[in-house]
Amino acid sequence: MGRPVFTDDLNLPGLLHAALLTSPHAHARIRRIDASRARALPGVHAVLTYQDVPRVKYASGGQSYPNPLPHDQVVLDNKVRHVGDRVAVVAAETPEIARQALQLIEVDYEVLPAVFDPLEAMRPGAPVIHDEPDTVGIHDAQRNIVHHIDAQVGDAEAQWAKATHIFEGEYRVHQVQQASIEPHVCVTYWDEDDRLVVRTSTQVPFHVRRMLAPLIGLPVKRIRVIKPRIGGGFGGKQEMLIEDLCALLTIATGRPVRFAYTREQEFTSARSRHPQILRFKTGVTDDGEVVAAELYIVGNTGAYGTHGLTVQMVSGFRGLTTYNAPYSRFTCDVVYTNIPTPGAYRGYGAPQALFALEVHMEEIAEKLGLDPIAFKRKNWIKVGDEMVMSRALGEGREGFRQEVRTSALAECVEIGARAMQWDQKRGKPGDGPVKRGLGMAVAMHGTGIAGLDMGAASIKMNDDGSFNLLVGATDLGTGSDTVLAQIAAETLGVPLEDIIIYSSDTDFTPFDTGAYASSTTYISGGAVFKAALDVRDQIVKHAARMLKADPEELDLEDRRVIAPDGRSVTLAEVALNSLHQDDQHQIMATASHMSYESPPPFAAQFAEVLVDTETGQVTVERLLMVVDCGVAINPLTASGQVEGGMTQGLGYAHCEEMAYSDTGQVVNTRFGPYRIYQANEVPRLEVIFVETYEPSGPYGAKAVAEIPKDGVAPAIASAIHDATGVWIRELPYTPERVWRALRSAK
Amino acid sequence: MGRPVFTDDLNLPGLLHAALLTSPHAHARIRRIDASRARALPGVHAVLTYQDVPRVKYASGGQSYPNPLPHDQVVLDNKVRHVGDRVAVVAAETPEIARQALQLIEVDYEVLPAVFDPLEAMRPGAPVIHDEPDTVGIHDAQRNIVHHIDAQVGDAEAQWAKATHIFEGEYRVHQVQQASIEPHVCVTYWDEDDRLVVRTSTQVPFHVRRMLAPLIGLPVKRIRVIKPRIGGGFGGKQEMLIEDLCALLTIATGRPVRFAYTREQEFTSARSRHPQILRFKTGVTDDGEVVAAELYIVGNTGAYGTHGLTVQMVSGFRGLTTYNAPYSRFTCDVVYTNIPTPGAYRGYGAPQALFALEVHMEEIAEKLGLDPIAFKRKNWIKVGDEMVMSRALGEGREGFRQEVRTSALAECVEIGARAMQWDQKRGKPGDGPVKRGLGMAVAMHGTGIAGLDMGAASIKMNDDGSFNLLVGATDLGTGSDTVLAQIAAETLGVPLEDIIIYSSDTDFTPFDTGAYASSTTYISGGAVFKAALDVRDQIVKHAARMLKADPEELDLEDRRVIAPDGRSVTLAEVALNSLHQDDQHQIMATASHMSYESPPPFAAQFAEVLVDTETGQVTVERLLMVVDCGVAINPLTASGQVEGGMTQGLGYAHCEEMAYSDTGQVVNTRFGPYRIYQANEVPRLEVIFVETYEPSGPYGAKAVAEIPKDGVAPAIASAIHDATGVWIRELPYTPERVWRALRSAK
Repeated sequence: MGRPVFTDDLNLPGLLHAALLTSPHAHARIRRIDASRARALPGVHAVLTYQDVPRVKYASGGQSYPNPLPHDQVVLDNKVRHVGDRVAVVAAETPEIARQALQLIEVDYEVLPAVFDPLEAMRPGAPVIHDEPDTVGIHDAQRNIVHHIDAQVGDAEAQWAKATHIFEGEYRVHQVQQASIEPHVCVTYWDEDDRLVVRTSTQVPFHVRRMLAPLIGLPVKRIRVIKPRIGGGFGGKQEMLIEDLCALLTIATGRPVRFAYTREQEFTSARSRHPQILRFKTGVTDDGEVVAAELYIVGNTGAYGTHGLTVQMVSGFRGLTTYNAPYSRFTCDVVYTNIPTPGAYRGYGAPQALFALEVHMEEIAEKLGLDPIAFKRKNWIKVGDEMVMSRALGEGREGFRQEVRTSALAECVEIGARAMQWDQKRGKPGDGPVKRGLGMAVAMHGTGIAGLDMGAASIKMNDDGSFNLLVGATDLGTGSDTVLAQIAAETLGVPLEDIIIYSSDTDFTPFDTGAYASSTTYISGGAVFKAALDVRDQIVKHAARMLKADPEELDLEDRRVIAPDGRSVTLAEVALNSLHQDDQHQIMATASHMSYESPPPFAAQFAEVLVDTETGQVTVERLLMVVDCGVAINPLTASGQVEGGMTQGLGYAHCEEMAYSDTGQVVNTRFGPYRIYQANEVPRLEVIFVETYEPSGPYGAKAVAEIPKDGVAPAIASAIHDATGVWIRELPYTPERVWRALRSAK
Repeated sequence: MGRPVFTDDLNLPGLLHAALLTSPHAHARIRRIDASRARALPGVHAVLTYQDVPRVKYASGGQSYPNPLPHDQVVLDNKVRHVGDRVAVVAAETPEIARQALQLIEVDYEVLPAVFDPLEAMRPGAPVIHDEPDTVGIHDAQRNIVHHIDAQVGDAEAQWAKATHIFEGEYRVHQVQQASIEPHVCVTYWDEDDRLVVRTSTQVPFHVRRMLAPLIGLPVKRIRVIKPRIGGGFGGKQEMLIEDLCALLTIATGRPVRFAYTREQEFTSARSRHPQILRFKTGVTDDGEVVAAELYIVGNTGAYGTHGLTVQMVSGFRGLTTYNAPYSRFTCDVVYTNIPTPGAYRGYGAPQALFALEVHMEEIAEKLGLDPIAFKRKNWIKVGDEMVMSRALGEGREGFRQEVRTSALAECVEIGARAMQWDQKRGKPGDGPVKRGLGMAVAMHGTGIAGLDMGAASIKMNDDGSFNLLVGATDLGTGSDTVLAQIAAETLGVPLEDIIIYSSDTDFTPFDTGAYASSTTYISGGAVFKAALDVRDQIVKHAARMLKADPEELDLEDRRVIAPDGRSVTLAEVALNSLHQDDQHQIMATASHMSYESPPPFAAQFAEVLVDTETGQVTVERLLMVVDCGVAINPLTASGQVEGGMTQGLGYAHCEEMAYSDTGQVVNTRFGPYRIYQANEVPRLEVIFVETYEPSGPYGAKAVAEIPKDGVAPAIASAIHDATGVWIRELPYTPERVWRALRSAK
């Protein structure tokens, strides 16, 4: 509606505009940098290079304290490690002057050899990307191995011994960008009390506040982070990418400063999804039972570590949990290269792992001559099963050992198959050059990070019986504010319009770890539910005083507190009485919530495609996801999540890919050359919910935010195979790749 | 420092400027009003007259629900009742266009007879000011008597029988204006969620929200009131004076609107102190004991009732409590006249009563040949005494019967007398035409309104061990935010800088009845103290978990939680651990506080003056107040309160007075003609605190905000009498009045 709700919708007097100079080289040392001509340009108020800011090591990933190792970044460095890496930043009166100033900064680079392939990067003699002595937490800096993971459960020898069939497969997934319509954008200014206000489009306002403090030399208490409405995050805003530079410019100039990435910088200087090489080795009995599974992943974390460890851990967990072999082992190398750094992206390692896993499972079924659905159904994790990898990957974390309490996966598959006319249409590619295929994949995700994610909420009653609900949770545009308000409204017996929700401001809203890991409804919603129950108790107690009744006997519904004899008081009467008249107090409560569980939502993803065997063009005609997300508190926004997620998943599987020149330049940094699905190109999208009631979730909810990303690529792979008989183990399914695969299969 | 902290420091795009057309007549009916020419003026966006707004009866006094009767106002009426009464309001592109538009509104008035003297107004046949049938709550509309009070305690007959001496005296006090440097100012706008934001300089943001709703036709939940920093309130902003008009203009235009009173309108259309006629009748025994006291007050409440009832009730309570006669009776008529409406003004009835009382007591002492200090000391209320009038005036209000628990009044008088060299300098007027005099008065006030005022506070711990403190309380510029933050800091064992206090915003801060009645430190501070204790408990509990110690044994000081064995964790460590690492939760608490007591602060006020007997010019050379306000939590801001209050009291006694023409025009509506003391004219001001520890107050505090207004006028009266031997029973002590009094005494 064009209303001023976003970060950028703020017109501050004296606002300066920032622009960022980025590296044109994939790997280089800065021999000399001279900003004097830029500084002399009229209208320029500050230019900062590595010479102007303190060298404090940090990690930019927006994660809970302490931020995961390595701490391999500094605000501005004398070395650049990818095209698009930070070199200098300018604040000027206008965006035009700021951009002009960038061109006046003279940088003398010593260009270094670069490496882009993670396997090459691990070889002895490869260029060392992080050779600085003050970086801590790199597993093997000389071989560019940031992290090495080796986690296993079960008895390898015994399980392999049971396996009469052993299958191996290697899969490759590529790098894609979150492509939020709103770029990273931030406005910083000093308030009237000399506190720095950071108005920013972030998923993690409280983490930004904490992480920013040491970089800009202010204590946390002098920083206030305001998160307005967000025009898409998808994980890309779970990182502290621009706030430090913007804040430093305000500190340098005393002026409000606006900093936004250009679209090009969204590709070169923001984050993306980790490319991976995944190798599965799976042991199956004659009965078709998966008894042993090993997954090795090489994760390419680009120039910096950030989310590199945790994303690959999620890949390992997701790749080894759906079919939950009693012996499971996850090994992984997380490797530096000179590509722009991947990070958190909706799905967070799961889309990669589930693509590889599901294609691998279908390949096994085919080789064993089994119906793929039957084979999967036999092996998938069921209610009551422990997720075995939770023991290995959650080691030492209290209560992390997890079991599945609810699952409607079987029903999801059955309902979906019926809706797709699976039995009638599967295996009938047709005769012409354009083949039709039907594919399916199973998806399983988590709901927040067990034992780690935490949300808090505060609810205050107003004179008219309405409520202010303050949450630190971060609505990215998903509608989570609405869902949280619904939870409060339901608990308090009022219509949704009586809940005034606000998120988030580090000064006013209670802490929340932020919007990621599909946690908001489950974790933050759990906090809202607790706070609302407390407020409800206070209301009933006060109403009992007014009605001279036993609080235990009172009901609260439809804006009234009702006694068994029919007498009642309205919530407005309770509010006025409690605030102004009798035993005066503010009815208000705060509650926090975390969970030692992460109950998995499940889904069956179906795809129907056409493959033009002459051109390799794949046309996706229909996507259907049948989802068990527990109780869908708001079916409309939940559907929106699924439709949006499938659309992104479709781009991931089909057409999106960050493409590079030989020297590490991203060649497609605009929409168009970088191809995301447009609204008018989207195929038929369908969503069916199969309800379970998750006992640990508010009103039975599990998550729905990320699971729609997980199944689209393998379902399309399955459909292409159904149409053509060819497995394509690498994404995305561009015409060229499909055409080549079809050729070489002939 | 010129920073944008006040209501007006907001530059909204599309802002319109409001201007108010006020009545030139003291009493008139609007026969016809035609705004068509004004509406046609380019740049004018809305003109509202009584024809354009719904007729909803209300009372503008910013008091707790329900607002006291009568409800004798409507937003815009077809009758005007004083010069400066509302007629129409305009919103336009610029202030100039808005003012120009006012001149184009054609109003045809039927001028009615007006009455300005309350005694005349009560006479049969006087013009009836409120004859509208839809007004409720007027005691005797035909005689313009809004309220009639008759409250007594004790046995009249028995006590009068003991009194061997009976004294009567009549005193008159005048009308003065609060004269805040920042006028009433308000900005209203629609936010992005179609909620109306009211940014206003108010002492009572929560009352404004509640009172506004029915007048503008929005539910409370669609209104958000923000109170920025305030440039002085002094009670004048304890009323909803302009917010309704401003909001209606935003509703009419869809645009942000700014509305501020001009300085002239501050005098004609805002509020002021009630003029009164006070008649004391006092019975004294041969021993000099006051055994019976009657006080009759005629209070002039001008055109509307607002605070008329409660201000006069405070006058009655204050006038009959300091010497607390066993038989006490208060009668009062609160009377409409056609002067601009008085309302709440710092002191709230007490300065009037204490002027009359103290002069009356000194007159009695003189007549009985007693030392005035000894006479007062014998009779003033002492620790353990019940304030007898509390029974009569607080009738039916739970717990309102009050006794004095702490008083250092005797020490205050003694210390003050010593400091002033009372014994050496009193009674030595000198020989020349300029006489020197020393005077003294006793003052006693309340601390909040017992059983009515309520505050709430919410405290949240941040990652670095700092705290956000949110309070609905309203710092008027007194520094109360600092005092509340000190209470939190002290309780939480941190320096003041670790408390980030914010007040107030009806969406974010818990409810508070507002800043009036000297309640903020005591009531809101009590809430802060409770919330801080709760947070402290939560901190200690979590620290005990970290230290594996017994929470009972832990101490919290200097930003650490310390075990008996010397081990400790910092608050930052507790915060990080509790938010991110172990049993994660937001350490946070909300608490409310009210009190059934209103512990009186006491003070001895001394004045030293010169009286030029040839011109009547009084020059005040020195004011000293010795104050028992319990524990002065912040002696610096407490001193500021006393110095500021004495300066205002000096203006009241000496030179301030709203003066009228015969037709009810205020003739001195600018500073200069209306004379407030300027900084460079202020006499030597001294403050001495004598500490008591009030058990019901946070850290022993009682109030200090209003008592400095109470004693200055009678102390100056006493000093003038010391210099000249003349009692002047009417304020202010302008040269003409003093000269006439000296002449007639000769």
